[in-house]
Amino acid sequence: MDLKKLIRDVPNFPIEGIVFKDITTLLKNPKGYSETLVQLVELARDKGITKVIGIESRGFIFGGAIADKLGAGFVPIRKPGKLPAETVTESYELEYGTDVIEIHKDAIGHGDKILLHDDLLATGGTMEAACKLVEKLGAEIVQISVLIDLTFLNGKEKLKQYDVKSLIEY
Amino acid sequence: MDLKKLIRDVPNFPIEGIVFKDITTLLKNPKGYSETLVQLVELARDKGITKVIGIESRGFIFGGAIADKLGAGFVPIRKPGKLPAETVTESYELEYGTDVIEIHKDAIGHGDKILLHDDLLATGGTMEAACKLVEKLGAEIVQISVLIDLTFLNGKEKLKQYDVKSLIEY
Repeated sequence: MDLKKLIRDVPNFPIEGIVFKDITTLLKNPKGYSETLVQLVELARDKGITKVIGIESRGFIFGGAIADKLGAGFVPIRKPGKLPAETVTESYELEYGTDVIEIHKDAIGHGDKILLHDDLLATGGTMEAACKLVEKLGAEIVQISVLIDLTFLNGKEKLKQYDVKSLIEY
Repeated sequence: MDLKKLIRDVPNFPIEGIVFKDITTLLKNPKGYSETLVQLVELARDKGITKVIGIESRGFIFGGAIADKLGAGFVPIRKPGKLPAETVTESYELEYGTDVIEIHKDAIGHGDKILLHDDLLATGGTMEAACKLVEKLGAEIVQISVLIDLTFLNGKEKLKQYDVKSLIEY
């Protein structure tokens, strides 16, 4: 099954000149959705993953399902102000300005083997900040998985000390 | 397994005087997470569900996994400006002001049998708006499922023409 065929190009989103890779056409297709999950889970099998972390919001969709299939717990990394208990935070640079993500301080710890998941890897700024959060809390990053890697943005370069896997490259 | 024991009370979140029901302690517990999913899927079995709709963001976590287990597609309802293709929108009232949610116009249609999922039912405003989006696009709402129903807020009353199921009530 060619998963790439289920991903839609939307021109000029979010801004003029950008072609957005829209995964909602894949998600709504039961066979494409299921096959994508099977492949993401296959990448992470038999690695002793204890927790899958999904990055808000689209990372929650596959992240939650991967966690269940691996018999792991699920942990969200969220935008500021959404997590109710004590958090650690990390900021990262955007083209203009900075952004912040958070994780609950007691969500993971020493001995946890982590799969970090997001749907898309672009410049890698968010994922790099997510890695810092995981390591601040003493857990081990076993794998980073993304559905799509926009390779021309060199996100993998920022994450070269990790095992980064993707199903689809552009 | 008593799922309620895995949910944490966080006092004074998001504002003074509110006790927030934090499901992240359940999500990170592999057995609790898996058992919750089994129970949510059990509610929706053999109903011919073609698409599961999750409401951004926490509705994506179980929503995505339920869709896979039912052999259905997954469709996100999102906050404004996040979905790249043509959308229909619906606004709903908050205590102060209004909020808006959107769905892709081509995500669902006539013949689709929908399970609408969110983690929490409070006053039901968001869910009622979600129902309107589904019906605008001609699909049938077969079930609404939530993990937690805050029954003292009477959300089910707003949704009484639908089959609303919850696993945990407060």
